[in-house]
Amino acid sequence: MERIPILQMGPYLLVTIQVDMHDQLALRLQDDLAEKISKTSARGVLIDISALDMVDSFIGRMIGTISGLSRIMDAQTVLVGMQPAVAITLVELGMNLPGVSTALNVERGMRLLQARVDGS
Amino acid sequence: MERIPILQMGPYLLVTIQVDMHDQLALRLQDDLAEKISKTSARGVLIDISALDMVDSFIGRMIGTISGLSRIMDAQTVLVGMQPAVAITLVELGMNLPGVSTALNVERGMRLLQARVDGS
Repeated sequence: MERIPILQMGPYLLVTIQVDMHDQLALRLQDDLAEKISKTSARGVLIDISALDMVDSFIGRMIGTISGLSRIMDAQTVLVGMQPAVAITLVELGMNLPGVSTALNVERGMRLLQARVDGS
Repeated sequence: MERIPILQMGPYLLVTIQVDMHDQLALRLQDDLAEKISKTSARGVLIDISALDMVDSFIGRMIGTISGLSRIMDAQTVLVGMQPAVAITLVELGMNLPGVSTALNVERGMRLLQARVDGS
């Protein structure tokens, strides 16, 4: 498939990453997301990576970029569903995803976004 | 990737299909979903196919099976995000997905599930 779907859930957008990312797909996701945030006035973006057994520096960078992109468009990003092994690998690689919030699952991520949006 | 993630959103489960399905993956999804419905007492399953440009008879059958499985476990299934071209192809192929409810997007699908669960 050529495109990662972005689902709207109320004021939030949900992106589920299931496939191996490559340059084109990552760029397209960023474009689509920027457009969707603008079109829907979304206040938050949830990126679910529960399907990923492994996160390399490419995906790490992409998540950082999406997070920065969302921030300047006034949306918060929360990374959810990280598998324990992925967390261990990230820490071992020294990739601590600066500026990216995390939550254990989609529900907790939504609560986190809700709290932040209400508080801001 | 080896597994399609099943995300819990309150009393509903969300499955986003992005990759080409094959036998193993479809069977695993059915197993995972049955287990997750039982564990979470979910009342509804949303299957998002917005990433699919094409739905063949294999995916059509799989959706029918998931729907039947959910029904006997007391959960409703709603298929969301179907692209117009996919709908046309399905009708042309004579696959009218009996017993499967559809909604335009995840939000509408959730409202449909909510109305049904409240009404039952």
